[in-house]
Amino acid sequence: MSNLIPPHGGKGLTCCLLEGAELEAEKKKAAGLKQIPITPRAKGDLIMMGIGGFSPLTGFMTKADWKGVCDNYLIADGTFWPIPVTFDVSRADADAIKEGDEIALVDPQTNVVMATMKVTEKYEMSEDEKKYECEKVFMGEGTPSADEFWKIAKDDHPGVQMVMNQKEFNLAGPVKVLSEAEYPEKYKGIYQRPEESRKIFDDRGWKEVAALQLRNPMHRSHEYLAKIAVEVCDGVFIHSLVGNLKPGDIPADVRVKCIDVLVKNYFVEDKVVQGGYPLDMRYAGPREGLLHATFRQNYGCSRMIIGRDHAGVGDFYGMFEAQTIFDKIPAPEEPGKALLCTPLKIDWTFYCHKCDGMASLRTCPHGKEDRVLLDRKSTRLSLRHHAPEAPLRGR
Amino acid sequence: MSNLIPPHGGKGLTCCLLEGAELEAEKKKAAGLKQIPITPRAKGDLIMMGIGGFSPLTGFMTKADWKGVCDNYLIADGTFWPIPVTFDVSRADADAIKEGDEIALVDPQTNVVMATMKVTEKYEMSEDEKKYECEKVFMGEGTPSADEFWKIAKDDHPGVQMVMNQKEFNLAGPVKVLSEAEYPEKYKGIYQRPEESRKIFDDRGWKEVAALQLRNPMHRSHEYLAKIAVEVCDGVFIHSLVGNLKPGDIPADVRVKCIDVLVKNYFVEDKVVQGGYPLDMRYAGPREGLLHATFRQNYGCSRMIIGRDHAGVGDFYGMFEAQTIFDKIPAPEEPGKALLCTPLKIDWTFYCHKCDGMASLRTCPHGKEDRVLLDRKSTRLSLRHHAPEAPLRGR
Repeated sequence: MSNLIPPHGGKGLTCCLLEGAELEAEKKKAAGLKQIPITPRAKGDLIMMGIGGFSPLTGFMTKADWKGVCDNYLIADGTFWPIPVTFDVSRADADAIKEGDEIALVDPQTNVVMATMKVTEKYEMSEDEKKYECEKVFMGEGTPSADEFWKIAKDDHPGVQMVMNQKEFNLAGPVKVLSEAEYPEKYKGIYQRPEESRKIFDDRGWKEVAALQLRNPMHRSHEYLAKIAVEVCDGVFIHSLVGNLKPGDIPADVRVKCIDVLVKNYFVEDKVVQGGYPLDMRYAGPREGLLHATFRQNYGCSRMIIGRDHAGVGDFYGMFEAQTIFDKIPAPEEPGKALLCTPLKIDWTFYCHKCDGMASLRTCPHGKEDRVLLDRKSTRLSLRHHAPEAPLRGR
Repeated sequence: MSNLIPPHGGKGLTCCLLEGAELEAEKKKAAGLKQIPITPRAKGDLIMMGIGGFSPLTGFMTKADWKGVCDNYLIADGTFWPIPVTFDVSRADADAIKEGDEIALVDPQTNVVMATMKVTEKYEMSEDEKKYECEKVFMGEGTPSADEFWKIAKDDHPGVQMVMNQKEFNLAGPVKVLSEAEYPEKYKGIYQRPEESRKIFDDRGWKEVAALQLRNPMHRSHEYLAKIAVEVCDGVFIHSLVGNLKPGDIPADVRVKCIDVLVKNYFVEDKVVQGGYPLDMRYAGPREGLLHATFRQNYGCSRMIIGRDHAGVGDFYGMFEAQTIFDKIPAPEEPGKALLCTPLKIDWTFYCHKCDGMASLRTCPHGKEDRVLLDRKSTRLSLRHHAPEAPLRGR
């Protein structure tokens, strides 16, 4: 009997990844289906649906789902979901597909058929509708107006660009996932399915597990967040994005090794589990914080650590909008369809010489001159200014 | 509208402290009643009932309450309560009082009438019954047998001694409290009624408030506990025992001033409230941890910080029995009668040179040789062994 939080949506882990003979048969069938190329975002979404990470989703969203998620954080059946998970195709492809068709979804970089899909709905997405989605999903509370938002977002918001670059039509319908791509092999021991992380947590007898979202190298602020979580929960799940990155970012395998060293030397090993998930960033700030909590619930986590500017980009969101949004989302009519994973909200953190350790704006009363802060935008330590005073670790 | 946790028992703050004309009238009446001397423990209990700190209790317990609390943590009406709150009198006094009488309860040290009481029940407490209470309330889980317990407890357990020294009879019945004794004057700004601490928390817009129980000078482990609480709650209530102490203990007013300095220099002031409560220690370890949570709920706290050996004495309790007991207490039939304040469980804490800061057994993987530990029994820093390596604060 597991003590862990149940998967989101009340239907258990709704995995649609095929295995064994079923997989082989579906692969054969897929070879004869119309082949549709997919984006990296769709590839990650498919794998998450395959392994139950996106439970209860088992296919791409209908127009009604899309509208409900944009407007009320609810898919059409009344279940909480924070960000549209849609699949776009070109007008030419859409013209060749009719509702009821089965199609094969192909990763164009590897030519691997990632999934088959039974198309239940085909709907056009006008420019205005894409813009509507962007304003609903990506526009922070503090934005003075939609006009101001678009002035900056169209060039500087990678999430907005991703939506605006979608093709003219969306296809909805259930999927059967045929592959987890390179992840099980490339991130052996790190990439897990939710059933695997849940088994690890269960084997350790955990109940309250906090997830720490990482997409950058782990630094002392992350360590501090993780350690607060370890103090107040049964354990922490250091869960790294191992999907696609921007050019110039630190590769996931290097980040994973750095975390290993930190965990080995500065954590009690049996209070920490390291894992990786195959999504790309959407940079949706507050809404992405909610998405992070949603899929972490599926991985078995009851708390989602939300620090400052969670999943943010540039200046689009208020520093703590990804915290306050948890208190503002409307409650689904059925409690079982609500998001159950709650935020573990932590303030801006830093090293303080007077505190003689890590602290946050909630715990440190000292001045700027006493603090070693992370450069917010680059997430690089401002070593240039502070190194001479910074204390050494593990003296 | 307050966001705070409601008082325990579902009846609001059940204050039975009289004020104004009512108080004057009752004082006059009390002068004509039979005068019964009270113990320091009863004095604290009376004040707590007076100011609503012991809500929903408004009088001393009946035999049925006493039995229910010993056996099932429930008073006779089905409300959770962890430790008997009874009032004892000598056989001679008992002989002169009959059920239905009103009596005056007098502090023999000051000759002040602390309360009047309408006696609704008079019951004898045999030696065996007192022993029964002690075994139920004070005997830790790890005690090999009651015989072993008594071998040590009769000389070395101050809580046991207090119960065994009770006189032959208990009187039950509702009280009207006439005085808060020296506390409002002596601990001005520190001693608060629950309605006062609730107002402070409400004025700050707090919802989740953690209580830190203090009966010794505040040291770095306490600071660490409090800071974890500040990180994950809206604020922390540093709540000191200002009741009676053992000879040789640091006086409360000195402790309060030390906390002031620490709060002023090492905390963000508006995340901390300092307060004092008028009880004496019972040294009931796990059960006292529950009592601490119960009355902190009345003061407006939703979390009770429970560290290692909370409210312990000697080796009577397992290091973390006061944490695990929260998961074991039987649930009252009516949810509104349950204890709602939950424990914030923190492991054994210390300074670690390799961690370069405070840590706990949950977060520090290093060895004994790296750690500066508190001497468990004396709660004095083992300065002799560690001072040369200990880092300075506020350099």
